[in-house]
Amino acid sequence: MAGNTFGQVFRVTTWGESHGPALGAVIDGCPPRIPLRAADLEEELARRRPGMQAHATPRREPDQAEILSGVFEGQTTGTPISLIIYNRDVRSRDYDALKEVFRPGHGDFTFQAKYGLRDHRGGGRASARETVARVAAGAVAQKVLDRENIRVVAYTLELGGIRARNLEESAIWDNPFFCPDPQAVPAMTQRVKEVKAQGDSLGGLVEVRVKGCPPGLGEPVFDKLDAVLAQAVMSVGAVKGVEIGAGLAAARMLGSEHNDPLIPGGFASNNAGGILAGISNGDEIVVRAAVKPIPSIAIEQQTLDLSGQPRSLSIKGRHDISAIPRIVPVIAAMVRLTLTDFLLRQRAIK
Amino acid sequence: MAGNTFGQVFRVTTWGESHGPALGAVIDGCPPRIPLRAADLEEELARRRPGMQAHATPRREPDQAEILSGVFEGQTTGTPISLIIYNRDVRSRDYDALKEVFRPGHGDFTFQAKYGLRDHRGGGRASARETVARVAAGAVAQKVLDRENIRVVAYTLELGGIRARNLEESAIWDNPFFCPDPQAVPAMTQRVKEVKAQGDSLGGLVEVRVKGCPPGLGEPVFDKLDAVLAQAVMSVGAVKGVEIGAGLAAARMLGSEHNDPLIPGGFASNNAGGILAGISNGDEIVVRAAVKPIPSIAIEQQTLDLSGQPRSLSIKGRHDISAIPRIVPVIAAMVRLTLTDFLLRQRAIK
Amino acid sequence: MAGNTFGQVFRVTTWGESHGPALGAVIDGCPPRIPLRAADLEEELARRRPGMQAHATPRREPDQAEILSGVFEGQTTGTPISLIIYNRDVRSRDYDALKEVFRPGHGDFTFQAKYGLRDHRGGGRASARETVARVAAGAVAQKVLDRENIRVVAYTLELGGIRARNLEESAIWDNPFFCPDPQAVPAMTQRVKEVKAQGDSLGGLVEVRVKGCPPGLGEPVFDKLDAVLAQAVMSVGAVKGVEIGAGLAAARMLGSEHNDPLIPGGFASNNAGGILAGISNGDEIVVRAAVKPIPSIAIEQQTLDLSGQPRSLSIKGRHDISAIPRIVPVIAAMVRLTLTDFLLRQRAIK
Amino acid sequence: MAGNTFGQVFRVTTWGESHGPALGAVIDGCPPRIPLRAADLEEELARRRPGMQAHATPRREPDQAEILSGVFEGQTTGTPISLIIYNRDVRSRDYDALKEVFRPGHGDFTFQAKYGLRDHRGGGRASARETVARVAAGAVAQKVLDRENIRVVAYTLELGGIRARNLEESAIWDNPFFCPDPQAVPAMTQRVKEVKAQGDSLGGLVEVRVKGCPPGLGEPVFDKLDAVLAQAVMSVGAVKGVEIGAGLAAARMLGSEHNDPLIPGGFASNNAGGILAGISNGDEIVVRAAVKPIPSIAIEQQTLDLSGQPRSLSIKGRHDISAIPRIVPVIAAMVRLTLTDFLLRQRAIK
Repeated sequence: MAGNTFGQVFRVTTWGESHGPALGAVIDGCPPRIPLRAADLEEELARRRPGMQAHATPRREPDQAEILSGVFEGQTTGTPISLIIYNRDVRSRDYDALKEVFRPGHGDFTFQAKYGLRDHRGGGRASARETVARVAAGAVAQKVLDRENIRVVAYTLELGGIRARNLEESAIWDNPFFCPDPQAVPAMTQRVKEVKAQGDSLGGLVEVRVKGCPPGLGEPVFDKLDAVLAQAVMSVGAVKGVEIGAGLAAARMLGSEHNDPLIPGGFASNNAGGILAGISNGDEIVVRAAVKPIPSIAIEQQTLDLSGQPRSLSIKGRHDISAIPRIVPVIAAMVRLTLTDFLLRQRAIK
Repeated sequence: MAGNTFGQVFRVTTWGESHGPALGAVIDGCPPRIPLRAADLEEELARRRPGMQAHATPRREPDQAEILSGVFEGQTTGTPISLIIYNRDVRSRDYDALKEVFRPGHGDFTFQAKYGLRDHRGGGRASARETVARVAAGAVAQKVLDRENIRVVAYTLELGGIRARNLEESAIWDNPFFCPDPQAVPAMTQRVKEVKAQGDSLGGLVEVRVKGCPPGLGEPVFDKLDAVLAQAVMSVGAVKGVEIGAGLAAARMLGSEHNDPLIPGGFASNNAGGILAGISNGDEIVVRAAVKPIPSIAIEQQTLDLSGQPRSLSIKGRHDISAIPRIVPVIAAMVRLTLTDFLLRQRAIK
Repeated sequence: MAGNTFGQVFRVTTWGESHGPALGAVIDGCPPRIPLRAADLEEELARRRPGMQAHATPRREPDQAEILSGVFEGQTTGTPISLIIYNRDVRSRDYDALKEVFRPGHGDFTFQAKYGLRDHRGGGRASARETVARVAAGAVAQKVLDRENIRVVAYTLELGGIRARNLEESAIWDNPFFCPDPQAVPAMTQRVKEVKAQGDSLGGLVEVRVKGCPPGLGEPVFDKLDAVLAQAVMSVGAVKGVEIGAGLAAARMLGSEHNDPLIPGGFASNNAGGILAGISNGDEIVVRAAVKPIPSIAIEQQTLDLSGQPRSLSIKGRHDISAIPRIVPVIAAMVRLTLTDFLLRQRAIK
Repeated sequence: MAGNTFGQVFRVTTWGESHGPALGAVIDGCPPRIPLRAADLEEELARRRPGMQAHATPRREPDQAEILSGVFEGQTTGTPISLIIYNRDVRSRDYDALKEVFRPGHGDFTFQAKYGLRDHRGGGRASARETVARVAAGAVAQKVLDRENIRVVAYTLELGGIRARNLEESAIWDNPFFCPDPQAVPAMTQRVKEVKAQGDSLGGLVEVRVKGCPPGLGEPVFDKLDAVLAQAVMSVGAVKGVEIGAGLAAARMLGSEHNDPLIPGGFASNNAGGILAGISNGDEIVVRAAVKPIPSIAIEQQTLDLSGQPRSLSIKGRHDISAIPRIVPVIAAMVRLTLTDFLLRQRAIK
């Protein structure tokens, strides 16, 4: 109801605020006898860690998740897995100036409207820091997917209008933008530098490809695989649009162009993005997310304070210039959680 | 789990196949003492009715919903509302030829893979006919929204590449495309005529605007208002992309362009599409859906039969040339169901 | 939320009022390829049919369920199964006298308090007639259990203080009380006759035994198998107590008496009633329900009317003298729904 | 699905094992602006704390819950409340002898059957220690109930066959049995002493009374207030039976005895236990639970080991002689969680 739980069989509930003592996730419904150690969570957590990218936030957090339950002698037991990530480098004072003012593009105004109060420190629950728990849970989900040889590959397709033209999976983690096209990296670097100098921020596109997904996952009416993927991806803070396969381009295609012919062994094209009638078709699943620019900018903006008076605001402090690339492992995590849940849901009706 | 239910407080469960005796919806959680009569469902059902548009399907269905429970002396009682729409003009024979073959772009292959069998007649549960129950339920939801003066306006923004440039709400229902720009109608008519002659089909864009939504609706983590709207809209058969506010364009904007300044009484712009941090901000909610072309085309296509042998296929019969405009009231219904549910969810935590 | 749905994988939503046009159930999550025909529902529906027992209600309803969706060529398809049972013998006029008065022991007062209005005709949704949809759905559940050779045996253990001492399964359906002990039948007949003459009503005990349940079903914390069985059984109108295995007697036993020793092949006793730590142990599952006397009695009672004024009330009309035996197939149905759901839930985590 | 979550609006998810580093609960859906501090949880946690009663377990745990999220400046924020209770006095070695053997009356056998492995240390997730998280969450629920002046009073009605005849609320916490009848205490003391000397264990009855509950809570079909209370109470480890109001005695009453006459201001009797047709009627809610004797006894028992070989077993170590009285605050907590959830559910449909 209050929406901090995702999934139906593989259910993840997250909790925690940016400036509280810790954040965490409880996973209920993970199958037993999956090998799992805290170290399994490190790689993905490192990818969304603040301060790892040259252009990114200087808040320093080790972001190591501890496993508090649900694992015995290196294997999951079928009982809830509780993950905790402590906050270390908390400087709540930085936010004192923001206590009385609504930052444009942030949830300050809407949290206040919804709850009648808010934890203003670093955005509280609305902070991007909330996603650390998603990434940890997504890494557990991947362990379930590993048994089925399902892989999730996510990367930056476009940053500030600079697009990756080639997709070299091996190149993704070799550059600070998680960009699969090494040729695009210099232009991205340049773009980030310019915009940073202006005190402004950037958006972009993230693409996810799921390899090895069997046909038959997804439920054909409201819980279509693409529908729940759309929810999953759009639930990540900065996302304003989601596409599956051909996506928006499909609106201008003819049926004869868009339909993917069936051929022995699969499909001749993949405009469907691996999903037909809400059910996986065995082809690669392709999802794209449009990421808005980070709303915290140094450029002066018009806004209101708590009492409704106009204020002008320039946001200093430890902020990323773009949600990309740190959002890449977060979106990957949401795709992992979705697929794991549908994988287990499908078993129930067999 | 099997995903035929939508919503958490205002819960709608739909059932029925294209060529079964009837389709229906059960609404559980509708507040009591809402005035409701079968006639309240007629207008929206008429808008998605087959055969109403010159270019559309000749299947003739009166599509009148009956209310079987949950209403007493013209008011809802708080108990489940059962709606039923009988199928009348069923010609299952038309589909005999399709029993053994997978239609490209349809759910035939994936239903077979998921369930090990399928009702091939008219697509069974995967038919667009399934949406009649959504529209009926959406009309009930609107009765709840009426009490809060929340209106949902939906229309065709683009069809086959022809875009509505002006949005005149009063013009929407005056043309066969549900297009709010009378200037665009002749070009749409021409485009449909050409493509029909080629035996091909068209896609387009549908836009929905919610007027009068109070701030505070939506749950800030996984069940963000935009996330659940994305699921809701993407769960409609032909949709391949969903945008909120600036949508995909946000990916190329700067923070200083995208942020909507707060001003007394609201916001100076609406790139957010009325939603900040997953919660409504009181501004107009703007959602767009990219609709793929109808997959059933007369043009010959490559495919496989049930035994995996290559076949070529030309689909004749009673098919629309585009899911637009009949999909417009369906997407509106999904938006209505989503808002009604969040409206009631918000009451629970007050 | 509004609670007309039961189950998580095998989800049943019921709808309908005593004096509306029909009642029904939608089953979402039934596995595909289960053989199912309307005739499969007849036997259990006949057992709860009004007017079948000498001492019971004279309302005559054929109570035949129709299957409106989810079955194709005699097999379930994995899509929602919609069941409908039309009301035929409705005499709403009988209830005009009750429009303004709260019947003691009935839901009249609480429905009015909850919803601010009520369908007073025959109790509306609070009528025992609501259970016809449960029985139909339970018969579908049994088809799933059949594949696992799980049987559910339910019977009257006690009626008006007369207890069945011997449990002969074959005798259950041979007498009007669904009593497994033919020796107890004459005393029950006599007891019913006396109480009927007094214008009063009777309660009793119903016992259910599940045979062939494999070990491992049930979820060990809040959704223990016994906990959900308790909800399922207590959700049937007249039930005021639920026991598992030794039940209330366990409160006066010593640990050395109550513990069931493990022996090769099973357990040496069954005080646990087949459930340990909320999970089935492979032994027979034993559940008992205490059924209160029917509240509609001819004897004059004190009560209030809608305006809060004292009234005296004697209820005439078509009423059973006891919920037993018609409640027996209803409780059996709830046990079937519970087991089927846990059976499918267990598959999801394998 | 895996059942570690309770409630629909006020949702509590618990996690943790007896011998893991900690246990905890995440509460999602608590309304904002409820005053809450860690100290609010102490009283109820103290009542279930091991080692507080003369006859009880010597495991020493401070059982102080920390609040890790969801509270800001002493008030709830509407975001998830994460509670954690660290395990301190863990002696897992004590359980090495039990690794290979199934304890009669415990979940060892069924956990192994369900998951294919188990955390044998102290029963793992099946330990009564799991309930510490329920009690902490129940204390938060009580803060919500406080705003409505709803009180939950729980006590030992019977222990080892010794029954409390008078109910003096003020006496409950003045004796080690949480017995409301001071006269019964000496006999209980004697009974415990005898049975302890025999190496055996005891069961009993716990009763809960809810005072101040408004009419209208509960959902009338599957989620009747009494049905969900039955689930809630039966989900506590040792409970084998649940009664509402007259409970099992109702089975032998006549309608004229059982019906509670309505009189101005309420009801003339309370056989209903405050619930009619699944909805609270404004009278005191009365629930009773039958608690089986603790299965860990020193008396030698027959059982099997993991390989299916017969073994005899005498359980030494730190065990209570009865789940009573420590189970009293646990059952109270479950009642609190249930009422809070229904209170908030009711708001959603207003």
